[in-house]
Amino acid sequence: MRMVDLIEKKRDGGTLTPAEIRFIIQGYVEGQILDYQMSAWAMAVFFRGMETEEIAELTLAMAESGEQLDLSVLDGRFVDKHSTGGVGDKTTLLLSPMVAACGVPIAKMSGRGLGHTGGTIDKLSSIPGFKVELERDEFLQQVKDVGLAVIAQSGNIVPADKKLYALRDVTGTVPSIPLIASSVMSKKIAAGAQGIVLDVKYGSGAFMATLEDAQALAKTMVGIGKTLGRDTIAVLSAMEQPLGNAIGNAIEVIEVLEALQGKGPQDLVELCVELGALMLVAGRKVQNTQEGRKRVRETLENGQALAKFREFVRAQGGNLTNFEQKNFSLAPLRASYLAPISGYIQWIDARKIGHIAMVLGAGRVTKESKIDLGAGVYLYKKQGDWVEAGEPVLELYTSTEDKKAEGIALAQESVLVGPKKPENLPLIAEVIR
Amino acid sequence: MRMVDLIEKKRDGGTLTPAEIRFIIQGYVEGQILDYQMSAWAMAVFFRGMETEEIAELTLAMAESGEQLDLSVLDGRFVDKHSTGGVGDKTTLLLSPMVAACGVPIAKMSGRGLGHTGGTIDKLSSIPGFKVELERDEFLQQVKDVGLAVIAQSGNIVPADKKLYALRDVTGTVPSIPLIASSVMSKKIAAGAQGIVLDVKYGSGAFMATLEDAQALAKTMVGIGKTLGRDTIAVLSAMEQPLGNAIGNAIEVIEVLEALQGKGPQDLVELCVELGALMLVAGRKVQNTQEGRKRVRETLENGQALAKFREFVRAQGGNLTNFEQKNFSLAPLRASYLAPISGYIQWIDARKIGHIAMVLGAGRVTKESKIDLGAGVYLYKKQGDWVEAGEPVLELYTSTEDKKAEGIALAQESVLVGPKKPENLPLIAEVIR
Repeated sequence: MRMVDLIEKKRDGGTLTPAEIRFIIQGYVEGQILDYQMSAWAMAVFFRGMETEEIAELTLAMAESGEQLDLSVLDGRFVDKHSTGGVGDKTTLLLSPMVAACGVPIAKMSGRGLGHTGGTIDKLSSIPGFKVELERDEFLQQVKDVGLAVIAQSGNIVPADKKLYALRDVTGTVPSIPLIASSVMSKKIAAGAQGIVLDVKYGSGAFMATLEDAQALAKTMVGIGKTLGRDTIAVLSAMEQPLGNAIGNAIEVIEVLEALQGKGPQDLVELCVELGALMLVAGRKVQNTQEGRKRVRETLENGQALAKFREFVRAQGGNLTNFEQKNFSLAPLRASYLAPISGYIQWIDARKIGHIAMVLGAGRVTKESKIDLGAGVYLYKKQGDWVEAGEPVLELYTSTEDKKAEGIALAQESVLVGPKKPENLPLIAEVIR
Repeated sequence: MRMVDLIEKKRDGGTLTPAEIRFIIQGYVEGQILDYQMSAWAMAVFFRGMETEEIAELTLAMAESGEQLDLSVLDGRFVDKHSTGGVGDKTTLLLSPMVAACGVPIAKMSGRGLGHTGGTIDKLSSIPGFKVELERDEFLQQVKDVGLAVIAQSGNIVPADKKLYALRDVTGTVPSIPLIASSVMSKKIAAGAQGIVLDVKYGSGAFMATLEDAQALAKTMVGIGKTLGRDTIAVLSAMEQPLGNAIGNAIEVIEVLEALQGKGPQDLVELCVELGALMLVAGRKVQNTQEGRKRVRETLENGQALAKFREFVRAQGGNLTNFEQKNFSLAPLRASYLAPISGYIQWIDARKIGHIAMVLGAGRVTKESKIDLGAGVYLYKKQGDWVEAGEPVLELYTSTEDKKAEGIALAQESVLVGPKKPENLPLIAEVIR
């Protein structure tokens, strides 16, 4: 088999056989297939797409390119959640203890974020003492004891994806649905998930700008899951404005703690209840989604989710005292953006708020950037809320005057106030099974 | 400027500016842009194409990436010819002395062939003593004195094309008309041509299998020439069967010598008269093609072309004695393919005959292969000719029994004899100006 023939086959619209896909992925990881062939192939995939069977085989070949987690040594049916990412997306932090409190064990490996804010791992790192790296045995033991552990993804998980993603990033081949879908799903498969609940976001602050693109991605991922024998469900959720009111790292942990006490922002809670219900179904803990919703919502009301969160943080060495005593260490410099007129908030642009959070220091510009865990943005208002002229809409937290000046200047373009109450679109557009 | 942005621009169907194209070619030659970005870009070009202005700029940027020949130090208007390549294509050898004899100087740089047979340089190398490499000053002096010189293309001519072509060859990005057209034209521009006559072949033995593809390529190259201020004309010529009767290296020189004495095969002479006429027009030696045809045909009848060929070969150190005394050194082993039935030759497949010539040793399989200059195929018959059962159709020349056995076995699939006289298609389908 020669890679150039496989590039030409895909270029001319052909369907690659499982053996051909294995040859490509193994050859690439082992270095027989070089970057310049892989990038040409990825561009051909961008234009020609892939059939469901091809994408499933690609996913499996990537999942098997490195270390894989075997969760069958533990009891229980493991369900993983993945979000395609958005601004203020702290669902993993809130959802995991809710679901774990209902008896579905969560053994989660998360990535570090490269974007507006840090990823789940960075957010957890803002808790003093919290260890994001555990040995495999410790990790499995904690899942057994607590029912919940979240660690940073090991470098040996899906090396094919790591290598291919870095290449796609510099060769204009990121926005290809088969490549995005197989990248996501390969990591879930390698992490041992039996059930997979996907939160596919669409809108200004999402990777997929339109509902149509998000639908296509969701269908592709659900197709992969089905082909590979995993219960897979996707929720399409709106990301036109940030999720919840806090955007950053420590500031999002604060919001999660409030939500765990039943005081959470409505959109965040609604999304977690829906995702949690689907996870309970996939984990065979309930018969249907309605029952699932009831069960997970109860964990917020009766304190079980909060207790599970505390237990989980303590198990990984974290100390929540400062957070729980509202003695948080957010970044020292603050600036408020005030409503220039009275009216309804027409929109708060998620992408622009994300950009502000990054400018303030909450995200990584490059892989090497250091995150300011105390930096971030707080939204006093959300779309559809009434605001009086001069009332604060946004609060910015940062550590240098330069960043503060840059952030507050950008704030003006991120919010619009107007006379008419805007129609609020549903948070969840569709569930794809 | 970042290469990834330019890849994305082309991927999304955008038109690159001259500055962007310069950035790509200069960056690639200088090593700032790496192969894996270049191959992704080439694949995007394969799918999206390029506008005429983009292709012209690409051509110019490549031409200027290395050494360029300045022919303005010599008198005369220089016209170059390029063939997209076919089986038995010895037009350069016959056409150049015809045109030079009419007073249009020829200063030609040719490539070595990688294919069925050697290229013009390999064919000339079969003449004892012939030097295919001359210092630039010697080369220019010979053009001044003789009006004709043909040398191997220097490695410093269009290094961008050399590098890009090698990459395209292993990344499935060869068959892109903008890339093929700019590759050809950049070499003609760098070689100092003021007028360019293109022989674009189509059919089984050509790079472009269909007339439509050949038309598209020809139009693109003529468009580049016009945009860059070069008189450019393209002839679309058939390559369903080999051109002339001889396929190989020394064996093609023999055929050229016969044609120079007015005994040439009809199709080869017809094509050279047509191309020669266009070259005289581009060289401003005649008013129109009709006058041009008459002038170049005369050079075959009055011995001027033969005299010019002898003068040219002598000037480059070659000795034609063996050829002219019919004491040629073709390869020692011979095999005849006999007609299995009586009838008309339905077709002689150019691609298959080319493959046989390569198997016999006349072509290079890889850049490092050594050519057997005496190997080759002779066609006793061409399409439409009558043949008696048992009469020889092909004669194969080679140097080992293995190659002879392999070649003669392949011969059976390269020729078809049938009862009905086939309709002969015109040799020249169209002239594009």
